[in-house]
Amino acid sequence: MIIKLQKNISRTDRENIVHTLNRTGIECEGSEASLFIHLRENRSISLKAEIEKLPGVEAVIVADQSYYLVSREYQSENTLIRIDGVTIGGAEPIVIAGPCAVENQDQMLQTAEMVKSAGIKIMRGGAFKPRTSPYSFTGLEEKGLQLLSEVRQHTGLLIITEVLDTADVELVAQHSDILQIGSRNMQNYKLLKAVGRQLKPVMLKRGMSATLEEFLGSAEYIINEGNHQIILCERGIRTFVDYTRNTLDLNIVPVIKKISHLPIIVDPSHGTGRRDIIPAMSLAALAAGADGIMVEVHPDPPASWSDPEQALYPDQFFHMMENINHFIQWRKNASTASRS
Amino acid sequence: MIIKLQKNISRTDRENIVHTLNRTGIECEGSEASLFIHLRENRSISLKAEIEKLPGVEAVIVADQSYYLVSREYQSENTLIRIDGVTIGGAEPIVIAGPCAVENQDQMLQTAEMVKSAGIKIMRGGAFKPRTSPYSFTGLEEKGLQLLSEVRQHTGLLIITEVLDTADVELVAQHSDILQIGSRNMQNYKLLKAVGRQLKPVMLKRGMSATLEEFLGSAEYIINEGNHQIILCERGIRTFVDYTRNTLDLNIVPVIKKISHLPIIVDPSHGTGRRDIIPAMSLAALAAGADGIMVEVHPDPPASWSDPEQALYPDQFFHMMENINHFIQWRKNASTASRS
Amino acid sequence: MIIKLQKNISRTDRENIVHTLNRTGIECEGSEASLFIHLRENRSISLKAEIEKLPGVEAVIVADQSYYLVSREYQSENTLIRIDGVTIGGAEPIVIAGPCAVENQDQMLQTAEMVKSAGIKIMRGGAFKPRTSPYSFTGLEEKGLQLLSEVRQHTGLLIITEVLDTADVELVAQHSDILQIGSRNMQNYKLLKAVGRQLKPVMLKRGMSATLEEFLGSAEYIINEGNHQIILCERGIRTFVDYTRNTLDLNIVPVIKKISHLPIIVDPSHGTGRRDIIPAMSLAALAAGADGIMVEVHPDPPASWSDPEQALYPDQFFHMMENINHFIQWRKNASTASRS
Amino acid sequence: MIIKLQKNISRTDRENIVHTLNRTGIECEGSEASLFIHLRENRSISLKAEIEKLPGVEAVIVADQSYYLVSREYQSENTLIRIDGVTIGGAEPIVIAGPCAVENQDQMLQTAEMVKSAGIKIMRGGAFKPRTSPYSFTGLEEKGLQLLSEVRQHTGLLIITEVLDTADVELVAQHSDILQIGSRNMQNYKLLKAVGRQLKPVMLKRGMSATLEEFLGSAEYIINEGNHQIILCERGIRTFVDYTRNTLDLNIVPVIKKISHLPIIVDPSHGTGRRDIIPAMSLAALAAGADGIMVEVHPDPPASWSDPEQALYPDQFFHMMENINHFIQWRKNASTASRS
Repeated sequence: MIIKLQKNISRTDRENIVHTLNRTGIECEGSEASLFIHLRENRSISLKAEIEKLPGVEAVIVADQSYYLVSREYQSENTLIRIDGVTIGGAEPIVIAGPCAVENQDQMLQTAEMVKSAGIKIMRGGAFKPRTSPYSFTGLEEKGLQLLSEVRQHTGLLIITEVLDTADVELVAQHSDILQIGSRNMQNYKLLKAVGRQLKPVMLKRGMSATLEEFLGSAEYIINEGNHQIILCERGIRTFVDYTRNTLDLNIVPVIKKISHLPIIVDPSHGTGRRDIIPAMSLAALAAGADGIMVEVHPDPPASWSDPEQALYPDQFFHMMENINHFIQWRKNASTASRS
Repeated sequence: MIIKLQKNISRTDRENIVHTLNRTGIECEGSEASLFIHLRENRSISLKAEIEKLPGVEAVIVADQSYYLVSREYQSENTLIRIDGVTIGGAEPIVIAGPCAVENQDQMLQTAEMVKSAGIKIMRGGAFKPRTSPYSFTGLEEKGLQLLSEVRQHTGLLIITEVLDTADVELVAQHSDILQIGSRNMQNYKLLKAVGRQLKPVMLKRGMSATLEEFLGSAEYIINEGNHQIILCERGIRTFVDYTRNTLDLNIVPVIKKISHLPIIVDPSHGTGRRDIIPAMSLAALAAGADGIMVEVHPDPPASWSDPEQALYPDQFFHMMENINHFIQWRKNASTASRS
Repeated sequence: MIIKLQKNISRTDRENIVHTLNRTGIECEGSEASLFIHLRENRSISLKAEIEKLPGVEAVIVADQSYYLVSREYQSENTLIRIDGVTIGGAEPIVIAGPCAVENQDQMLQTAEMVKSAGIKIMRGGAFKPRTSPYSFTGLEEKGLQLLSEVRQHTGLLIITEVLDTADVELVAQHSDILQIGSRNMQNYKLLKAVGRQLKPVMLKRGMSATLEEFLGSAEYIINEGNHQIILCERGIRTFVDYTRNTLDLNIVPVIKKISHLPIIVDPSHGTGRRDIIPAMSLAALAAGADGIMVEVHPDPPASWSDPEQALYPDQFFHMMENINHFIQWRKNASTASRS
Repeated sequence: MIIKLQKNISRTDRENIVHTLNRTGIECEGSEASLFIHLRENRSISLKAEIEKLPGVEAVIVADQSYYLVSREYQSENTLIRIDGVTIGGAEPIVIAGPCAVENQDQMLQTAEMVKSAGIKIMRGGAFKPRTSPYSFTGLEEKGLQLLSEVRQHTGLLIITEVLDTADVELVAQHSDILQIGSRNMQNYKLLKAVGRQLKPVMLKRGMSATLEEFLGSAEYIINEGNHQIILCERGIRTFVDYTRNTLDLNIVPVIKKISHLPIIVDPSHGTGRRDIIPAMSLAALAAGADGIMVEVHPDPPASWSDPEQALYPDQFFHMMENINHFIQWRKNASTASRS
C-alpha cells in the first residue's frame, strides 16, 4: 500500500500521518526525498478510508503490482536524462560503446579514440567484473576506475561502469557519470537502495530471468529512494536457445515504452554473445523503439581479457555505426514527416 | 550419411550404387527427384572410402548435423522463390497479411480489399485451424478453401493457407499458392515429406520450442523430397515471459541468413500476440534482415473468430504499412549507396 | 461450449437439438459415440439458457479451459485401464521397459527375456521413429511391427509402440496393445482423433513445451471421439538446463492426479537422457505418485541404433527393478497402514 | 588457472611462488586459509610448465570449468556438516521446517513447538526478506533475529536464516547456526566471499535460472575463502510452466551427488509454490537422493505475512512428516539390505 502525499505537504501534516499510523501499530517507511510512505502488505487495507481523510494525503493506492513511480500512470511524459549536453530518452537514440573490461591504459585510449571518432559520447568499461568462476579475471577494480577517469579527462567522453557492492557506490560514483547495476545484481535490493540515494544516473540491467514485474519492481526500489534518473537495459534472457548466448528479447522495448516513462536501451553484445549478428540486432533494437544501444568493441577482440567472442572488430564497429547513423537520420525524417 | 551423386549420373551408375549398398546389407532411400541417398546412422561410416570410389558418386558426407541441402555449404547463393511476378528472398522484403481464420465471404472480401490497397501481393487466411481445445472453432475447412479461391480470382492476390494432414495436401494445393506448415506440425515428418513431394512453395513455421538443428532438420525433410521452394518463418518461442504470448526471437533471422540459403520471414502476430506492439516488431524484423513479415489484420478485430487480440485494426494496419514502405525504400537506398 | 446430453437421450431428442441449433445458424459436431456436441466459440453464449431447456439436455457447459471429459469434475474416480489382467491406474504402479527402437529379432528376444525376468508385463519398442534428421534411422516400420508381434506371441508380453500417421493407425493397432502418440505429435489433432476412434488404449506423451492446458486439451481430443482409455506420460520439457537432455518435470504428476482421472506415467529415459540418473528419477517419479514408469533398456546400449546414451545396461536395469519393487511393496504397506 | 600448493608448504616457498609470478607481470590472489592461488585467464597458460617446477607446487590446474574445490575430483568422499549432534550429508536425510518470515513471538513459538514435536532439529524463518516490490513486507530485520535467538534458547532447535548484505553477515551469524544465501543473491559474489570468510555453515540456494556451472561456481566462491561447510539447495527454476510457481528440478539432485561432495537439499515450498503438492514432491526429493528437504509451515497459513499459498497447514505437515519418517526408515533398511 502506498500513501501518496500532496506535493506541498507541511512537515506537521507529514508527521501527523506517520504518528497516526504508528498509533494503530503500523510502522511506515519513506526516504527523505520521497513523497510516498509504504505499509506492510496484508495488514492495512481496512485502514484505507481512514487514511485518505488525513490532511496532506492525496491518495491511498493499494498496489496490485510491484511498481508505481516508474509507470506512466504516475508520470505520463518521458523521463529525459541530461548529462553534459547528452540527452537519454529523447528524440535521438544514443550509442554507448567500449570494451567489456578495462585492461590497461593503451587499450583504453585506443578504444576511446575509436569510440569518439564514431561520434559517440558515452564509453563503457568494467572495472569490477562479476564472473561465474572465482578464478576468472574479475577486473582491475580501483585501478580500473582511475583509468576510466583518465579517459574522461583526456577525451571528454562520459563514462558508465558497473558497481557491485554497497561499499563501493561512492567510489564508483566519483569516477563515472552513470552507474551500472548488472544482471546478477538486479535483485540485490540493498545495492539498489544505495544507488537510489546518490545523485548520478543509474543504468539497471534486466536479470537473466526477470519478469516485467520484477524488472520494474527493481527500478522502483531505486526511484523510491529519490533517484529518478534510471535507464533500463534489455540484455538477453535465459531460454532453451543455444545459437545465441542469451535470447535478446526486443519485445520488451515497445512494452516498456508503453507502461513506463523511463528510457530503455538494448545491449546486443551480452544479449546475443555473437559479434556476427550484433550489427543486425542493433538496428533491430532501434527499429523496435529503443532509446539507444550499448555495444562492446575492442582494438583486438581475440586478445580481450573477457568475452572475446562478443566484442566487435574496429572495422565492423565503424561500418555498423555508419549504418546506424543513417537509420537514426531516417527515423528522424520519418517522424518529422509523420508529424507534419 | 549422405551420398551426393554427380549431377549427370546415369541410371546404371545410380542402380549400381544402390545394389552395392544392398549387397552389404544396407538399405538406402532417396526420392525420385533427389540427388541424395541416405544410410542408417551408426552402421556405415567404415564404408565411406569404398562408396566414394563408385562411379557417379561425387562425395560421401557424414553429416554431424541434421541438415545439409538447406545450408550455404551446399548452395551459397540465396534461394529465390518466384510466384506470378512476386519474388521472395530477393532484395525487397515482402508482406503477407490477412485474417487469422477464413470466416465468411464478406470478411474475406473486405480484408482482401484492404490488403490489396496497401500494396500487398500475398494474403493469408486459415481454413484448417489447429486449436488447443476440441471445442474451439477449427476452421471452415473445404468451404474456407473455396472462399480463398474466390478471393484469388476476384483480386489476383496470391494465397497462403495451412495444411494439417497428408490427406489434405492435394486439396489445399489446388486452392492456394503457398502451403503453410504450422508450428504444431513442424515435426510431423509424414506431412513434411508429403508437401516435399508436391510442387507449390511451402512456408515452414518454427515449432514453439524448436532448436536451430530441429528447425533446419525439418526443412531438410522437405527439400530432400525434391521441393526446394521453402520459406522459413519465425513465430515466437516458448519462454518464461508472460507479457507476450510467445517470445518473438528475431535473433534467429541473421543466424539463419548466415547458415542457410532459404528465405526467412517473421510473424509478429503469433510471435507477440499483442496488436499494440506488432508495428514496432515488424519494423524490427525487417531491420534484423528478415525477407518479409506476415501479419494478421481484420476489418473488426474484436469480432474475429479466433485470436482477436492479435489482429491489427484497419487504421493501425495502414499506418504500419506506410512506415514499413518508407523503411523498405530507405533500406534499398542505403544498400545501393553502400554498394556504390 | 459443450452440451452435455442425458445418458438415455432418444435419437429424436438428439436430432431435435441439432436442428434447433442449425436453425439459429449454428453448426455443431459430435462423434457417433460421443455424448457431447460442441459449438463454435465466441458465438453462442447468449443461447445458453435456451438450449438448457431442450429435452435431452443435461447441462450446457461454457468451458473456460480446453478440457472437460478428462477432468475430475466430469468423473471423480480414477480411470482404470485393464489389458489382459494388467491394470494401469490402480493401486500398484506399472513398469514398461524395452529398447528405443526395434532393431532385429535377436535384440528383441534378448530384451524381452530380460524384461520378463524382471517381472514386467509391458514391453516398449519403436517401429516408426520420428527423428530430427531425415538421414537418421527412422525405424523398421512394418517389419518392426511384425517383430513386435512375434515377441508378444512368444512371451505373452503386452506391446506398446508409436504411431506417426493417420494412415498407419489400423496397422499399428493390429500389432500392439497400446498405441503411443509421441511428443512431436501431441498437437497433431487429426492423429489424435484417429486414435480416439479405435478401441485400443492410447498413451499420450507430453509435448516438449506443452502447458497443462495444451496437454489435457490433446487428451480431450481423444476422449471426445469415444476412447476413454488414455494414459498420460510426462517425458521432460524444454528449458535452459543442459545437464539433462530435457527437464523431467515430476511436479506435473501430483497436479494431474488432482485435476484428472486419467493415469499418468513417467518416462525418465527421454526425460533426462542420462542413464546414470534414471534409477534415481524412476524412484522419485513413483514417490511423486506416478502410476508407473517407462524406461529404455538394451542388451548392449553402446550398439543401440538410436539414443544409446539413455538405455540402461542389463545389470543397471535389474538393480533398479529390485529397488523399485521394494519401494512399491513399501508404498503398498504404508498405504494399507494409513488406511487401517 | 589454479596453482595447488603442497599441504605442508613453507612460507618461504609460498612467497617465492608469488614473487616469481609477480616478476613475470602476473598478479595472484589467494585467501589466508586457501591452498590455492589463481591467475588471470587468457594470460598464463604458457607458464604452466615453468610454475609446476617451483618448490611447493603440487599441481597446476587449467580449469575448464568454474569449480574445482567443490568437485569429487578434489575430494571424493561426502562432506559431512555436523552442528550440535545433527549431521547433514550423512546416511539420514534431514528436514528443516518453519515459517517463511518471522512475524512475532507467538507465531514463532507455536511453530517451533510443532516443528520440534515432529522430531525436526532445524528451524527456518526469514528476518531479512528480499521482495520484488519495495512496498511489500521485507522482514523484521534485527528484531526478527532476536526472536530467532529466543526460539533457539527456549527449544534447542538450530536456526537457519537468510543474510542479504555483507554488512549484516556478522550480525546474522550471531543469531543463527546456518546462514542462507537466497536465490536472488546466488551471484552476489561479494556476499559469497563474506560468508566464506566466517565459520558457520552456509546454505546456498540455486538462482532462478542458474546452470550447473554457475551454481557450483558460486559454491566455489565460498569454499575458496576457506569455508567448506556448504549445503546446496534446489528451489525451482524459471521455465514456461505456470501450474507451479517455479519448476522444481529434482534432476539436479543425482547429478550434483555424482560430481560434488557437498550435500544438497530440496525446497519444495518455493520450488512449487503450492501446498497441495509439497508432500508428494518432498517424498520425491528424498527418493531422488536429496540429503534433506526444507519446507514452510505456519500455524495459520492464510494469515501468513508472506507467501501464504505455499505454507503447509499443521495437520498437513504432521501427516507429511509421518510419511517421510516411514520413507527414511525404509530407505535405511533397503540400503542396509543391499549392503549385506
